[in-house]
Amino acid sequence: MKNESITGRDVDFAQWYTDVCRKAELMDYGSVKGFIDYLPYGYALWEEIQNYLNTRFKGFGTQNVYLPTVIPMSLFNKEKEHVEGFAPETLVCTIGGGKELDEPLVVRPTSEVLFSDMYRRTLSSYRDLPKIYNQWCSVVRWEKTTRPFLRGAEFLWQEGHCLFETGEEAEKNALLVQEVYDELGKEILAIPFLKGRKTEHEKFAGAINTYTIEALMHDGKALQCGTSHYFGTGFSKTYGITYQGRENKLEYPYYSTWGVSTRLLGAMIMVHGDDNGLVLPPKVAPIQVVIVPIRQKEEGVLEAARKLKEELLNEHVRVLLDEDDSRTPGWKFSEYEMKGVPLRIEIGPRDLQKGECVLSLRVDGSKVTTSLSSLAAQIPTILEDIHNRMYAKAFSSLQERIHEARNIEEFKKALDQGGFVKMAFCGKEECELKIKELTNGGTARLIAKEEVKDGTLCPICGEKASLLCYFAKAY
Amino acid sequence: MKNESITGRDVDFAQWYTDVCRKAELMDYGSVKGFIDYLPYGYALWEEIQNYLNTRFKGFGTQNVYLPTVIPMSLFNKEKEHVEGFAPETLVCTIGGGKELDEPLVVRPTSEVLFSDMYRRTLSSYRDLPKIYNQWCSVVRWEKTTRPFLRGAEFLWQEGHCLFETGEEAEKNALLVQEVYDELGKEILAIPFLKGRKTEHEKFAGAINTYTIEALMHDGKALQCGTSHYFGTGFSKTYGITYQGRENKLEYPYYSTWGVSTRLLGAMIMVHGDDNGLVLPPKVAPIQVVIVPIRQKEEGVLEAARKLKEELLNEHVRVLLDEDDSRTPGWKFSEYEMKGVPLRIEIGPRDLQKGECVLSLRVDGSKVTTSLSSLAAQIPTILEDIHNRMYAKAFSSLQERIHEARNIEEFKKALDQGGFVKMAFCGKEECELKIKELTNGGTARLIAKEEVKDGTLCPICGEKASLLCYFAKAY
Repeated sequence: MKNESITGRDVDFAQWYTDVCRKAELMDYGSVKGFIDYLPYGYALWEEIQNYLNTRFKGFGTQNVYLPTVIPMSLFNKEKEHVEGFAPETLVCTIGGGKELDEPLVVRPTSEVLFSDMYRRTLSSYRDLPKIYNQWCSVVRWEKTTRPFLRGAEFLWQEGHCLFETGEEAEKNALLVQEVYDELGKEILAIPFLKGRKTEHEKFAGAINTYTIEALMHDGKALQCGTSHYFGTGFSKTYGITYQGRENKLEYPYYSTWGVSTRLLGAMIMVHGDDNGLVLPPKVAPIQVVIVPIRQKEEGVLEAARKLKEELLNEHVRVLLDEDDSRTPGWKFSEYEMKGVPLRIEIGPRDLQKGECVLSLRVDGSKVTTSLSSLAAQIPTILEDIHNRMYAKAFSSLQERIHEARNIEEFKKALDQGGFVKMAFCGKEECELKIKELTNGGTARLIAKEEVKDGTLCPICGEKASLLCYFAKAY
Repeated sequence: MKNESITGRDVDFAQWYTDVCRKAELMDYGSVKGFIDYLPYGYALWEEIQNYLNTRFKGFGTQNVYLPTVIPMSLFNKEKEHVEGFAPETLVCTIGGGKELDEPLVVRPTSEVLFSDMYRRTLSSYRDLPKIYNQWCSVVRWEKTTRPFLRGAEFLWQEGHCLFETGEEAEKNALLVQEVYDELGKEILAIPFLKGRKTEHEKFAGAINTYTIEALMHDGKALQCGTSHYFGTGFSKTYGITYQGRENKLEYPYYSTWGVSTRLLGAMIMVHGDDNGLVLPPKVAPIQVVIVPIRQKEEGVLEAARKLKEELLNEHVRVLLDEDDSRTPGWKFSEYEMKGVPLRIEIGPRDLQKGECVLSLRVDGSKVTTSLSSLAAQIPTILEDIHNRMYAKAFSSLQERIHEARNIEEFKKALDQGGFVKMAFCGKEECELKIKELTNGGTARLIAKEEVKDGTLCPICGEKASLLCYFAKAY
């Protein structure tokens, strides 16, 4: 039953991942080293994410903007922590119109400095606040090792950069966006996230708080899927962003920022995929239903298939009828399984005589014979059910792989099984680093919401434990 | 009645244009020389254009993709005509991750070579055709003189790059897209376009045919607003794009490409704007209706305004209620006129007593007092009517400024009046260039559909005239 053209997941997960990305035609290695082509089947997934998020973002007053693709070097160098984070990975332009530029231009690796400089120029009064701006764009990071969607020279993302009169509003905004990201997982990606705050060591440079959503991949490693940050007035002070406040004094606005990227495609692949290829959640699948006619030259088969296709289009289902008679049904089964199409409908002469067809669900390979009459109207519900099954499956898989540990020995054992390890520690950065070192890469993914039980001690320094964290190996 | 904060259109049209772009907060001059910030009010216009076109493009099977933001220099240099067109305006990266790159990377000024290289890698069989791919992205051109939306270092656009088995299909696609662009003008921008084919001299480098839509600006100059091209197999041969044909031989696919850009924002501003600022067509206006309460502290005013706002939201109208009591109604009138809001509703205590309010139409400044009851349900029709009025106004303005000429003297006189000049000539490139020279810049914008009348001679060489063209000065 396994597709032979791709590596098995448990043979070599990294190779399986690359095989799926390419064979499902999500991407291709592009004309430029380290860069990828986002092909239609992959880009369409990103478009569905964009549609969902644009609607949600607009729901709390977000406005989209577009700022330049390059940043003058002097502006880029203004904020030290920021530079340290990004400078080693920048791509820099030095020639324009055939001449050397007066000042080099950095291709944006992120747009904090551009947003800050724009706000400095355009913000004037408390009346202008809040500013809830978001940008959809690509960013470039000169990475040495690259993996499609997970790490590469260029990826697509959205970056929200917002200003508020009070710190409370800014932090509330960061938390609200974390909630929206979490619901993106629940509602359309069928991915359950763990959500929480980052530790001091793991939070974004310059942020007061970083909030994260983390998912668990098939290989037991965690993937950070989206973050939102509360910054206080740090950026405002660095970039000189002020406004006339209500009391008629100059004030510094409070900052929040947030983003998700095409990394989410990687999450979908690695959470849901199996040895036959991609398994796509119906809400984002470019093809939700594929109709495969069997013995299509026999009387009535294509007619029935075409009729069903029309009915499904009327139900706003994204449907493909594959009529290509130079391919066998078996070839088509394997092809659309590779592409992760959630539901396949097989229509052949024998079933047709009884007014029936066969439904095959990608999520678990289950097949059921069903009546063709009024089938189309039921498909949206069946797709909803597939979504729920996929979420439930991913949810149990996550829950089963959350282990608890009280000391480093238990921690190591749990980490070897793959998944998250919940452990309390004192919260000090040095102990956090020590845990990572002692466990060969178990990093604090997020702080759990529950309180630490009384009397728990840090397994490293033996002092009172104050933070309960989820640790994991991570991408 | 004129807004004093902007230059008059007939005093200095270029300055008027820049004033409107900035005061209406469509854009700001960015942190990078020559680049602009697309602010929310301007970017939202582009988003409406994207929504319209994405739906139309998908209607004929277009799939969106995303290719790299940079092009290796060797690939960029492969096609000579292409290089000659774009090389002088390129921005070039030479440093990555702190080290000099092995090969410089050109920030894409257009993506022909990336699409061609991607097709070379991924196309294999006639089964894969047609390929109707489109990309939404920004492109960078190192321009010396820049004007917001019209010419600049970076603009937003869509670029379609398509492959077909036959030349007929490819040309049909280019013509279909021209039609879609024309309908974009009619249906949402309220801009009437002239549409037709370009002359030999004006067509895109390497194209067999270029189709264009051209609009007439208030100052009498033409603006090319969108083009589609039929290329034959030229690109395919240059880049080695082949596929296994139906007869089992290697074949070269036929190419079409097409694009519109944020230049369309410039067209909207310059076709509809007036001395009070922007005038936005309702279909794309970020704010379609603004409600301005008058003497808002008096009893019932804000309540009535808020009620109307809720009703309008239920009608899916993009409505703003400006409750800021630190601004006078007069200030608000002027502000939302500057921003081109199509419809203003004034609600004050006196009208309210009679259950009435005042509607003021941005397109012609007309005012009408109307009953508040069941007003909300009528607003979509009123907006539709405003759209039609705007289109009709722009249509007469275009028709009135199409002049005919039989010789260079008439041509010059007509061109001085502003607008298009229709004249027949022999069609030879040298005569076309001579016309431009003799008339101080009257260029052939497009070939008219009508046949040339028998017996008409070329006003330059005196030979038989074979092409009837629309000429104009152009942006």
